[in-house]
Amino acid sequence: MTEEGDFLEGEEGALRVAVAARAAARQLAVVPSEKKSEILRMVADGIDESHAAILEANRADVRAARTTFKENLLAPSAFERLELDEGKIRSMAAGVRAVAALPDPSGRVLSRTLLDDGLVLEKVTCPLGVLLVIFESRPDAVTQIGSLALKSGNAAILKGGRESARSTAALLDVFTKAFASFPEIPAAALSSVADRAGVDALLALDEHIDLVIPRGGYDLVRHVQATTRIPVLGHAEGICHVYVDRAADEAMATAIVLDSKRQYPAACNTMETLLFHREAAERFLVPLLNRLLEAGVEIRACAKTRALAPSLATTPATEEDWRTEYGGLILSVRLVESLDEAVEHVNRHGSHHTEAIVTGDKAAAEAFLGRVDAAGVFHNASTRFADGFRYGFGAEVGISTSRIHARGPVGLDGLVTYKYLLRGSGQIVATYSGEDARPFRHRTLP
Amino acid sequence: MTEEGDFLEGEEGALRVAVAARAAARQLAVVPSEKKSEILRMVADGIDESHAAILEANRADVRAARTTFKENLLAPSAFERLELDEGKIRSMAAGVRAVAALPDPSGRVLSRTLLDDGLVLEKVTCPLGVLLVIFESRPDAVTQIGSLALKSGNAAILKGGRESARSTAALLDVFTKAFASFPEIPAAALSSVADRAGVDALLALDEHIDLVIPRGGYDLVRHVQATTRIPVLGHAEGICHVYVDRAADEAMATAIVLDSKRQYPAACNTMETLLFHREAAERFLVPLLNRLLEAGVEIRACAKTRALAPSLATTPATEEDWRTEYGGLILSVRLVESLDEAVEHVNRHGSHHTEAIVTGDKAAAEAFLGRVDAAGVFHNASTRFADGFRYGFGAEVGISTSRIHARGPVGLDGLVTYKYLLRGSGQIVATYSGEDARPFRHRTLP
Repeated sequence: MTEEGDFLEGEEGALRVAVAARAAARQLAVVPSEKKSEILRMVADGIDESHAAILEANRADVRAARTTFKENLLAPSAFERLELDEGKIRSMAAGVRAVAALPDPSGRVLSRTLLDDGLVLEKVTCPLGVLLVIFESRPDAVTQIGSLALKSGNAAILKGGRESARSTAALLDVFTKAFASFPEIPAAALSSVADRAGVDALLALDEHIDLVIPRGGYDLVRHVQATTRIPVLGHAEGICHVYVDRAADEAMATAIVLDSKRQYPAACNTMETLLFHREAAERFLVPLLNRLLEAGVEIRACAKTRALAPSLATTPATEEDWRTEYGGLILSVRLVESLDEAVEHVNRHGSHHTEAIVTGDKAAAEAFLGRVDAAGVFHNASTRFADGFRYGFGAEVGISTSRIHARGPVGLDGLVTYKYLLRGSGQIVATYSGEDARPFRHRTLP
Repeated sequence: MTEEGDFLEGEEGALRVAVAARAAARQLAVVPSEKKSEILRMVADGIDESHAAILEANRADVRAARTTFKENLLAPSAFERLELDEGKIRSMAAGVRAVAALPDPSGRVLSRTLLDDGLVLEKVTCPLGVLLVIFESRPDAVTQIGSLALKSGNAAILKGGRESARSTAALLDVFTKAFASFPEIPAAALSSVADRAGVDALLALDEHIDLVIPRGGYDLVRHVQATTRIPVLGHAEGICHVYVDRAADEAMATAIVLDSKRQYPAACNTMETLLFHREAAERFLVPLLNRLLEAGVEIRACAKTRALAPSLATTPATEEDWRTEYGGLILSVRLVESLDEAVEHVNRHGSHHTEAIVTGDKAAAEAFLGRVDAAGVFHNASTRFADGFRYGFGAEVGISTSRIHARGPVGLDGLVTYKYLLRGSGQIVATYSGEDARPFRHRTLP
């Protein structure tokens, strides 16, 4: 599937792709770890060797994006994500080698229980099966997802953005060629669909697809969540808060607030609302907001905040501000009278992504950590730490705000499930039932 | 909410119940383990003390079921599940005490990582939030679910069968009274809705409800799966297989096959299809099928099986038989030429519930365990072992055939998720970025 013309369209095509992916997943599930690493190293070498072809395909994408999509121009940041160079291609190859070197998340024994003599129950991780990954203009999603899926033993169906179709195809080609050298790896281990209709048809196939990972903006994620019964891993928005408690240190609070807002304003783990305890506000709200204003941050403040800082150039915040992910240098600010009010605000308006408290009061910190309902709750640290690499996962498939399956930054572990293997020697349940029931031993084994 | 008249109806009522449950869940999440156990012991005592009122309510349910529902008579097995007696009430109380004594699944530290000096990441289990549990005529579901939900720190909304409404209300009343003695436990920790419209309205509230657990037959589970975007824990059907391999021992295979079919024919982990390798079939297919026929099992066999056992009273199996959960003493039988064919049959027709191989060949067993895609895969043991109590979980909320979140028999662990707690001392991400980036330490802590 390296040519655009090969992409299948519509419902029939989607079903064919999904059924092939399911069959491929069953084969992949039993490929040994060392073999998967070997293939990934070959893919990495293939990326290095094919850099000219990849660059050429990418240049054609960039040219087309400039001309074909003239009426609907890509944002400069989207161009930046779309455009590849030698350095980016080298780091893609390095990324694939890094995934090859990670431990296999599949086949780990999570627990082992002796139910009775000669009857041992094991809980063992295994691949989820078939992943559907929908991403926007970044071609490096192909190598990231392709390598994470293979490493964890899952088949993946990719749908890239229309504007990166040629780059996606060139990168997929590298995987396809590597797979062709290994008889145990079916070609459908990694496939793709090109058209939107194909994706919508795939989203209906909950019998064949086990997890959807949308990597993109709010509209994409919401669309996926609203149109499928397949579990979705990801987050539609990141409305993160920093709460500056009564007992916060001014220098620490200032550093964390500036980092949480300015370190990368478009990121999902960027602070959108700053909550300030009145006592801390009386000490240093004005200088802190001044630092933000100097840094070019637009401030939308509650009435109490504006009353406390009347001379600053702020605008009034509306209810809408508390539930807005700005994705840029805008910040809403609210003054609260207590930790309770802060927790209440966060649980009501937050998106359960990442929330931070700055305080020198340990009891206040633990109350916040316990009571805030979010994937990540931080004490005296920037919200920007919410990230698979910073958490030490090596690689990340996304950040989940769902409570089910995987939560927060998700590494390879989010791409596996488990099964129970019971090894007996002829045991039947009748022996353990009724009047003379033999008791179970239920002893945890190492 | 102890009187039928108090039950709220329709969309507005559903929203009110769900919002109250969410608020209750936030309070429950921080109730200490010892307190939760204390409340559960009080509930258990309350069940014992209220046995007369519970029995009276139950007798009214049974009478109403015999008269009101005359045109739509309950099956005798449903009457058996509905009807309570002193012994059943005592075991309900004992069940609640057993849950009180289990370890708290919430608040467990799953991992601890030193990201840098003074910056420690913890992954800690926490309650899911709000559960919606829909069950049919068994009143004991109230005490089971009520105790498991409280133990794990979740709020629960119950919807019992119409025929058990009075019994459900009497049992809920015991919980409500116990909760009233503890100011930290909100009344909405355990609530209920009575009407079908209320449930359908609740199923639409995916913002407020985190997990639906339907405990009932195929139609109930399918209806729930088809009408909600909330994750569903459970299984619609159990189409389980026993594969008698070439190298199976006759006595062991016979015992396992009989147990898997006859030990409790209506259970979801009962065998529906028996797969027989030709070589084993030539050795003992006829005597084994004879044992099943003698035990009153109706046999629907493939053409090859019938050719090998022409004198036996079998009927021809159709394609439909391979995907039917009989729920009674019917068995489909298929002769296969290889382990591959058996695995292929199981993966195509099974419901990913529980699958068993009987063989003396270790390599064949491991191939089957690795390649079969199911929540439980067994070697030389009856499929009937798939059960939370037999697995040693102490209590069970259901058996899941989903790959996401929890799979197989699900105990208290299936009612929690996790969150990441990061405790720092003022760290910001800018320190770990760019040219002079400080490296992370990423050291696993005990």
